[in-house]
Amino acid sequence: MEFSSKLLEKAVEEMSHLPGIGKRTALRLVLHLLRQPKHQTQTLAEALLNLRQAIKFCEVCHNISDTSTCDICANGFRDSSLVCVVEDMRDVMAIESTGTYKGHYHVLGGKISPMDGVGPQDLKIDSLVKRVESGIVKELIFALSSTIEGDTTNFYIFRQLKGAEVKVTTIARGIAVGDELEYADEITLGRSIQNRIPFETAIKS
Amino acid sequence: MEFSSKLLEKAVEEMSHLPGIGKRTALRLVLHLLRQPKHQTQTLAEALLNLRQAIKFCEVCHNISDTSTCDICANGFRDSSLVCVVEDMRDVMAIESTGTYKGHYHVLGGKISPMDGVGPQDLKIDSLVKRVESGIVKELIFALSSTIEGDTTNFYIFRQLKGAEVKVTTIARGIAVGDELEYADEITLGRSIQNRIPFETAIKS
Repeated sequence: MEFSSKLLEKAVEEMSHLPGIGKRTALRLVLHLLRQPKHQTQTLAEALLNLRQAIKFCEVCHNISDTSTCDICANGFRDSSLVCVVEDMRDVMAIESTGTYKGHYHVLGGKISPMDGVGPQDLKIDSLVKRVESGIVKELIFALSSTIEGDTTNFYIFRQLKGAEVKVTTIARGIAVGDELEYADEITLGRSIQNRIPFETAIKS
Repeated sequence: MEFSSKLLEKAVEEMSHLPGIGKRTALRLVLHLLRQPKHQTQTLAEALLNLRQAIKFCEVCHNISDTSTCDICANGFRDSSLVCVVEDMRDVMAIESTGTYKGHYHVLGGKISPMDGVGPQDLKIDSLVKRVESGIVKELIFALSSTIEGDTTNFYIFRQLKGAEVKVTTIARGIAVGDELEYADEITLGRSIQNRIPFETAIKS
């Protein structure tokens, strides 16, 4: 692409570093900003700078937070003996939006993935082990994605917790509510038959 | 969406004002910035602010430029008697990338579109008429998109130029090079038959 302006080229270049944004999309976004009043660009730039400079991570669960302890960890009405282990804050938001979970979280910040150069030391595993060893946690729920990396991470944490008095569970995998059996993949369908639950339990939830 | 941080919420909010970026995509982009080194966010924010504050528009053709006259208008080797009328700077970039056009441009900044509240006074039509009246321009090439708005704009400009000594042409519409006839739409195919050109001309280009 040949630009008629160095300033424009630089803005498009920086914008296209964002994931999923190519040069053409970046140009479209930047031209949009140029057509809008100046203050819109200013507000956007300030919001990004403020976030990057002032953002904190909860000292307990490592979720993104404006304070040193996040609202969930600071909430006395939530069950601190129950900790759900997730990959990133989007998973916390997804689980929170169900409105059914009243425990705490632990945000690992990723999965063990040697291909991407992510080892156990890059994740918040040590602090999870410490949290469990402190004795408050009675149950740990693994809610990582069911990929090789997710399974590896689950297994690694499980081994680190050997000897600790904690119940370790994993979220149920099965056919989604409303899905047709004929379109489900074999592994999911197989697991959902193996891990069948009493009908009385199902009708209550 | 429930955010654990006001700063994050604000950044996602501002990001989602960009066209084609929803709340989920905005969150993905912002979380990406959080995972990158601080200077990346800083460079992005500065590039956007610099662009928005220092950008100029060429006084002749109204294309985006770092100087008061753009490189194309300032280039003495280009034919200033030939002016191609386009909607925005992306069209200039598209035509420039063909490498076949050596004339000047006139960037209208949009099309006449009463539905979107865009009238002739919102576009750079007056300055185009003045450019033609100055007598330098011998041929005007309309290269707006062939929509109702594009056709209206072409026709409006054409009427404004009544009496001016200028040849007005429009870019050729037809079947794209390499396309199959059977998949072409009827209007394009119809036009490409009506506006057929001598075979000798075609093999030269």
